[in-house]
Formats: sequence, C-alpha cells, structure tokens
Amino acid sequence: MTTNSSPQLWLYDTTLRDGTQREGLSVSIEDKLRIAKRLDQLGVPFIEGGWPGANPKDVQFFWQLQEDPLKQAEIVAFCSTRRPNSTAATEPMLQDILAAGTRWVTIFGKSWDLHVTTSLKTTLEENLAMIRDTIEYLRSQGRRIIYDAEHWFDGYKHNPDYALQTLEAAIASGAEWLVLCDTNGGTLPHEIGQIVQDVSSHLSFVTCQETMTKDNGQRIIPQIGIHTHNDSEMAVANAIAAVMAGAKMVQGTINGYGERCGNANLCSLIPNLQLKLGYSCITEDQLTQLTEASRFVSEVVNLAPDEHAPFVGLSAFAHKGGIHVSAVERNPLTYEHIQPEQVGNHRRIVISEQSGLSNVLAKARSFGIDLDQLKAEAKEILQRLKDLESEGFQFEAAEASFALLMHEALGGRQKFFEVKGFQVHCDLVEGKETSNALATVKIAVDGKNILEAAEGNGPVAALDAALRKALVNFYPQIATFDLTDYKVRILNGHTGTAAKTRVLVESGNGRQRWTTVGVSTNILEASYQAVVEGLEYGLLLHSQAEAAVKAST
Amino acid sequence: MTTNSSPQLWLYDTTLRDGTQREGLSVSIEDKLRIAKRLDQLGVPFIEGGWPGANPKDVQFFWQLQEDPLKQAEIVAFCSTRRPNSTAATEPMLQDILAAGTRWVTIFGKSWDLHVTTSLKTTLEENLAMIRDTIEYLRSQGRRIIYDAEHWFDGYKHNPDYALQTLEAAIASGAEWLVLCDTNGGTLPHEIGQIVQDVSSHLSFVTCQETMTKDNGQRIIPQIGIHTHNDSEMAVANAIAAVMAGAKMVQGTINGYGERCGNANLCSLIPNLQLKLGYSCITEDQLTQLTEASRFVSEVVNLAPDEHAPFVGLSAFAHKGGIHVSAVERNPLTYEHIQPEQVGNHRRIVISEQSGLSNVLAKARSFGIDLDQLKAEAKEILQRLKDLESEGFQFEAAEASFALLMHEALGGRQKFFEVKGFQVHCDLVEGKETSNALATVKIAVDGKNILEAAEGNGPVAALDAALRKALVNFYPQIATFDLTDYKVRILNGHTGTAAKTRVLVESGNGRQRWTTVGVSTNILEASYQAVVEGLEYGLLLHSQAEAAVKAST
Repeated sequence: MTTNSSPQLWLYDTTLRDGTQREGLSVSIEDKLRIAKRLDQLGVPFIEGGWPGANPKDVQFFWQLQEDPLKQAEIVAFCSTRRPNSTAATEPMLQDILAAGTRWVTIFGKSWDLHVTTSLKTTLEENLAMIRDTIEYLRSQGRRIIYDAEHWFDGYKHNPDYALQTLEAAIASGAEWLVLCDTNGGTLPHEIGQIVQDVSSHLSFVTCQETMTKDNGQRIIPQIGIHTHNDSEMAVANAIAAVMAGAKMVQGTINGYGERCGNANLCSLIPNLQLKLGYSCITEDQLTQLTEASRFVSEVVNLAPDEHAPFVGLSAFAHKGGIHVSAVERNPLTYEHIQPEQVGNHRRIVISEQSGLSNVLAKARSFGIDLDQLKAEAKEILQRLKDLESEGFQFEAAEASFALLMHEALGGRQKFFEVKGFQVHCDLVEGKETSNALATVKIAVDGKNILEAAEGNGPVAALDAALRKALVNFYPQIATFDLTDYKVRILNGHTGTAAKTRVLVESGNGRQRWTTVGVSTNILEASYQAVVEGLEYGLLLHSQAEAAVKAST
Repeated sequence: MTTNSSPQLWLYDTTLRDGTQREGLSVSIEDKLRIAKRLDQLGVPFIEGGWPGANPKDVQFFWQLQEDPLKQAEIVAFCSTRRPNSTAATEPMLQDILAAGTRWVTIFGKSWDLHVTTSLKTTLEENLAMIRDTIEYLRSQGRRIIYDAEHWFDGYKHNPDYALQTLEAAIASGAEWLVLCDTNGGTLPHEIGQIVQDVSSHLSFVTCQETMTKDNGQRIIPQIGIHTHNDSEMAVANAIAAVMAGAKMVQGTINGYGERCGNANLCSLIPNLQLKLGYSCITEDQLTQLTEASRFVSEVVNLAPDEHAPFVGLSAFAHKGGIHVSAVERNPLTYEHIQPEQVGNHRRIVISEQSGLSNVLAKARSFGIDLDQLKAEAKEILQRLKDLESEGFQFEAAEASFALLMHEALGGRQKFFEVKGFQVHCDLVEGKETSNALATVKIAVDGKNILEAAEGNGPVAALDAALRKALVNFYPQIATFDLTDYKVRILNGHTGTAAKTRVLVESGNGRQRWTTVGVSTNILEASYQAVVEGLEYGLLLHSQAEAAVKAST
C-alpha cells in the first residue's frame, strides 16, 4: 500500500513513440491526442509524444498540444544525438525538436562501441562529442534533458569503460536523467540488477568528483531510469530488478505495445511497484483507472485487448467452478494475489457471470444520473448491457450509446426521429477510377415519413449524407455535427467475412465529441446503427444545452 | 550454448492439464494425443497428461497412451491428496490414478494453513497425514512421486514452519521431487529466489538428519522443482529465479497457456535457460523445433498464435526502420539478442513507410527473388511502395500483396483472372431482423467473361461468395481456401465516413496463411481488392507448389 512515506518513482510512458513501433499498430494525430489525455488523467508524469521531424504526424501532434496543453504531465519530444561531423546548432532535426515547444527532451545516444562503428560509422570519440554537443545545445535553448542510453546493457557487457564514458558525457553536458536501455531485450534480471548497481556506484563517484554548476545555476545530480524490452519475456521483471537496484524512472508502454515482442508493460509494472513493493507512482484513485485506461488505449489503436493480460485482462481475476469459487468467495486471499478493484478490474466467476453493478452505478453517475436510489433499474440496465455485450457490443469506448441505453431503461429516451429502413447500392465498373455508392433512407419525424437519397464516395458516407439530408430541415443544428472518427473491428475473426462487425463512430459538434457503437454481421448495418445513434446523441446534447440556457435566463 | 558439462534441468510440461484451464481453450482426446506426441519429439522429459478420474476425457487419454506409448517422455498422471478422514487405499480417485498406468504420479497437496482450514476444512495435522498416506500408498503400488506443493510461496510467507512440515511429510513418504508452486502468481522473483534458497538449505538439513531407506532399497534425495503463474507478468522470471537458486525441475506450458493470465511459458523459458544461462534441457536440434511446436500447439487448440510472443512469435525478430535493417544485416548482434534460427524462427524485414532500400532487398530475398542485380527495379519497387503507403496501403501486415507487387514490378505477375467490376446491393427494412446483401461480380478468365451473383449476411461475405462461385470451375483448389481473418482500419479518422478505409484479409489453405490489403474511400471496394488479391495469392502458392512437385519428380 502506498503511503506518504513511500519512495517516489517517476513513470515515463512511451506508448506514443516506442509503442507505435509495434507491427500492425498505426495511429492518427487524433488518436495520439486522446491517448495523451488519458495518460495525463492516469497520472503519468512524463509522456513521450514522438519524434518531431522524423515524422510529419508528430510535428502536428506537438503543435496541437501547444494549443491545448495537458493538465499535469510533461509531454516529451524524442530525438537522436546530432549526426556525426556536424554541429548541433545547425542540425535541422534539432530545430524541429525546439519547435515542438516541450520543456523536456529525450535524447538517445549510442552506448555500445559496436553500434558506434557499425551503425553510425564514426569514431568512439565523435560519438561522445555528439552526445555532449547535442545535450549542451538543447540545454542552452532552455530544455531539460533525459538521456536514453541505447543498447546500454549490451554495450556495458562488451566495453564497460566506453559505455560509462558515454554516460559521463551526458552528465557533464547537463542531462538530468540517465535511462539505461535494454534495447534488444536480451538481458536477464540478475544482470540488470548487477549492472544498475555498478552504474549507481560509478555515478555517485563521478558526481562527487565534479560538482556541476550549470547555466541555470542549479546543481544537477542525474538519476537513473530503466527502459526494457520483452524479447526474453523479462521486460517487467527487468524493470523491477533495476528499480530494486536504485533506478528512479521506469519507462514502458500501455499494454506493453512496442517493436517485436513489445516494451515493459506499464499495466503490470505500476501495480507490481505500487501494491507489492510499496513505491509511489500514481495515486490510489488513479490506480483504479488502470484497467479502463488499458482498454481505452487498445480501442483507440484498434487492437483487441489481451484477455489474459495480468492485472487488467478480462480473465485476470476469473475463477472457474467448484471449490475454487466457494473458497475465493469465503476468502479472496486464497486465490487472488491482489484485490482486483485496486486496479479497476473485477473478479469474474466464469459460470455465474456476475459482475459490474458498481460499474453501471459509477458510469451512471458520470452521466449525471443517480441510480443509487433506483436499484431495480440499475439491475435491468446491467442485464441489458450484458446481453448486448454478449452480442458483441462494447460500451467501454462508446459512452454515448451507453447513455442512450440508460435513458431508455429509465423511460426518458427522447425520440427525435424514427428509423424505417435503408438501402445501399454500390458498383464498380472496369476502367472507372472510383466506385459509386448510393444510399436511400426512410425515417419518420413527428409521425411524418421522409424518404431521402444521397451519394457518397463510400456506402457509409452515402448513408450518413442521406440521413443528414432527411433530418436537417427538422433539426438545423445537424449542419454543425461532423463525423470525426470511424473504427471497425471484426469480432470472432476466425469466421472471416461472415463474422460480426463492431463499428465505433465518433461525432462532434465543434465543442464536444461523443462515440457510439453498432454491431451486426453486415458492416453497413452496424455502421448505420452507430451513425444514427451519433446523430441522436448530438441532438440530445443540443436539447440539453438549450434547456440549460432557458433555465439560466 | 549447451555443452556436455552443462548442468541438467528437467522440463515438465502441463499444457494438457493446467494449460487447458485457460478460458476459451478446449481440447479433444485426439488433440491431447497430438500435443503429447509433439512434446515428446521436442524432448520434454515429463508430460502431465491430466487428472484421470476427475475428467472422463483424461481416463481415455491415458488408456490410449498405454496402447501407443510415447517414445521418450514420461507421461504423468495428476491428482490431489486423498480426502480428509479417509484412507488412501480405499480412495476411488487413487484407483483411477493407478489405472492410468503411468510410472510417475504428481500429487498436489496444501502448503498454506489458511487453505487447509478454509478450503479443505480440516486440521493441519490431518493435512500432513493426507500427504503422507497418499504418497506412501502410491509408492507401495510401485509409483514414483512428484509432489506439487500448492500455494507454496503464500503458505511459506504466512506460516513457514507449517509449510516446511508439509514438505517433510512428502519427503518422509518417498516423494522424489518437491515442486514449489506459486499458484496465485503473486510472488516476485527476489522472493522466489530467497525462499527456494531457504527451502534448499532446510532440506539438506532434513535429508542429512534422516537417511531414508525406502521399500526399493534406494536412498531418495528429493530435488526441488518450480511451478509459476503469470498473474504479475513474472512467471518466466520467477521460474528462472528458482533455477538460479537451485531448482532442478521447471514446470510450464507451451505458449504460456493456463488459467487467468497463464502459466510459465516454456517457449520463453527453454531458450532463456539454455541459450543464456547455459543449462541443458533439450538438444540443440530439438530447440530448433521450438517455433514450430509453439505454432503447432496453437493450431491444435485453435487459438491465434501470439505474433508478439518472445522467441517464437512472427514479430519476435522483425525489423522496421531502414538504418536498423542495414545494421542488422551487417551484424545481427546489433539488434538481435539471439540468432532466430536457434529456436527455429527467422528474421523478418518489415515493409513500411520507414523502409529503406535495404528492407526491400531483404524482403525480396525472402520471397526467393534476387534484386541485388536489379538495382533499378528495387528502386522502382521502393518508390511504388512509398506511393501506395502514402495513399494508405500498409504492407507490413500484408506480405502477400507486397509479393504480388514485386512480381508485377518485375513483369512476372501471373494473371489467373481479371476483374471487370462488381455491384453490391443491401437493404434493411423496418421490422425485419437482418439485412440482406446481394453481390454481382464480373471477371474474365482466359478471355472469357463470367458474371456471377451471390447472397451473404453482409456485403463482403456476398462479394467473397460471388467471386468463389465465379472462379471455382476454373480453379477447383479455391474450395480449400478460406478467409481466416478480416480487419478494417479507417485512415485519416478525422474526415469521418468520407475517410479512406484500409482492409486486411487473411486467407488460408489449411497449411499456409497469407494476408492481403485493399484501400479505398469505399469500404466495399477496399474489401474487394483485398479479397481478390487473397484469392490470387492462394492460386500463386498452389501453382508454385505444383511446379515444385513437377520439378522434384
């Protein structure tokens, strides 16, 4: 349990940079912003946003965060040391870093002599100059520096003297954190622990020798961080071995996303560090958001959540029949290593499938509906929710659909319009560049039937256009709505195109955004459901806002 | 590297018992027999087959193995200690164990006082009697005993004296292995290491005190084993910590299958122990079968392989960025912690936006195309690749489409059929449960036009069905193809339904799987492109296989 006296650790999330190196994962700027905000809420103090300059998307991302900054977290720009035989001040890459406008910059440099000569094709001396020059220049521009020592452990094992010289160069030029990276993921925990100890004692020797007074007059005593990869299935164990040997910063990603076998999984690291080893990383309250944050990120990046993930997986606290269940019900300690609620997960009894009333209540409160007094409705909503989830619906990332569901269960779902049916026709003819899509919709507003048709460059765009055309005369505010994101997930992938499809649609009105969900074996029907609910929820928000204006005047 | 002098470790696989506790995993007797044989080939010396008596399937399984025994491995029956206040000789459960006809039996008993009183509802003394009596009885029937000390680490932490008494009871009655189990998966490596050391020193004291001469006249010096679960993402690290503290048997499962978050993953444990720590578990040759064994087991239990699994995953040795790839080709050590071939995996060069020319060349070689001589074509392919990726195509997960692209650039793309166009019609009428989809396709084979139509429960399923109908008369092998996965990703999400859609389709022919990609603003067109290329690549594989057969005969 974390207390005021628990030793502090600094979390550093790299989901948005190293995490996106995972094969098959790609994110839009919008996705990255949503994830950054969620990590900020979760209490992660350092969020690495990307490598501006190396990637046009990342430049945009940092600019957008300058307009609309995070609440608590430091957003960090990532970059390599300058190129060999150049100067930092004239390096365009570093100008992009400065333009990103972050307080903190992470600079990675080579620790391993083999990499200096093989990958960089330069001299060991020039590599030290590259580290020094890059950090000094960024410091002179007012940046604070985290130095990532790439391939640290392999480098140290091959040539400890040279590896230590690279760290000394980083210290001398003003880096505040020295992050030891197991870039290839091949090191085992006992080696990590030993090497971190060696480095710690070497560094205290170095920092004792030279009392460094830097441009801002502050004495900088660098601290050690750890960055591990999972190639030996050791990323989490290695990070913990480093912390136990004195590291104070832990780098990792949500759900362990990352290149090859992934990075250290923050969803396992945080509870291990906090609940088992007594370190303080985030508040207890933030820790209870961990499971939701994990699932949120997997939804945003459109990857199926790992149901067997430690701590946050659907099966992490699942108990099968018999003695096991009755024992765990008498005393959870018998079969559970932590209380699932501490990480926002819950016990699942696989047969009886009992879960979630408290989730429903909590969610209802988040929509301003107090269900505590209405236990019967809460149970009904829970049942409806479970039925829908077993059909493939998922409300984790579709809160607007969940809100509509609750209003319906409480008898207060406003009928803005009624859906009668739709038709879509699509054809592609040889030689023609693009295919046409034509949609016809039939809806009823105030008992009046409206038939409307529209074209689009795809069937869902055509459906959306036809719906808007049909509704805009009744609800002119629909002209301000837009569809900001559209995601499709195939459920039960192994049945191929005959599988169920889940569609998430994000809509906006310029001020707010909301997400709705649709499920069907027919992707067009699923899309239609989600688009229709997206319009409905937008109309609901508008009418609530109007009611609030009236009430206040 | 393993040598003759490498210390020996005994592997114990429990995929067929603990592994099948994984939620969503179920196996037939036939499946279990296939897996047991594969594990035998892999050189695993102990294979736990199940709990005969608790499960009729398991009774059958052991009988079938008596008819057709394994070549090398010991098949082990698993069972609990007898019930409280009974006798082992009259316990029907133990008669089932004897009927299984194995040389070795694993008996699990309670180590944790809390479990004795809460789950078994008996006295601490009776639990010791249950352990002694059960093991003595099975020994008297000629069985050799592995004793699994359930909840060992939690029990030892709560009441070390009592926990040690349970082990002493097992030793005194003739158990040859004492397996310490972290049943709830909550223990961390430093605790595991410390406790295994404590137990080792206690045991050498006990075994020194009493020189046990048993019925067969042999002196039994029990050894320690380790059984870990992954609830803290520590199963592999914990098993290794135990081995480094003296454990000589390692229990785990293929792919880490198991209840909740799984068991220790043998596919990670074996290479770590053997390649990094110098223990001897299986032969070097058997180690090269590890990747295949992992995929074989996932196929048999019908779970998608984890592409990001350490050592054996498809992405475990995948390389993205350009510099990265040229470095790894110059010296694999720079970015690979082991040689992938040591575990039967291979390096993969991933094609993506960040690809340099070296990626394209490396990829071409993996498809049997030597581009080194054809620099101009390589550059052209790279340019085409970059153009397509900027349009939204993504080849890192669609290698079959990339192979077709290369064949096209080199002028060798075989035309199995030509696409003339398609039409899709879809409608949903108020009150009707599901929507219809009707697809019409027009294709040409050998200059002959074919028009074909089919229905489906969604537009893509209808398109796929129509294409197959049109082609199967010309290419009967299409009947063996199936669509195994279908993924949709919306690009430039912020433009909503007008955005581009990328579709990935995975197809299979029972032996191989391949993935193709399509991109369009129209989701149906993108799906169509990917489905069409999936069929084309399947036909290409088939014709290559036929050519290979002809060449060899």
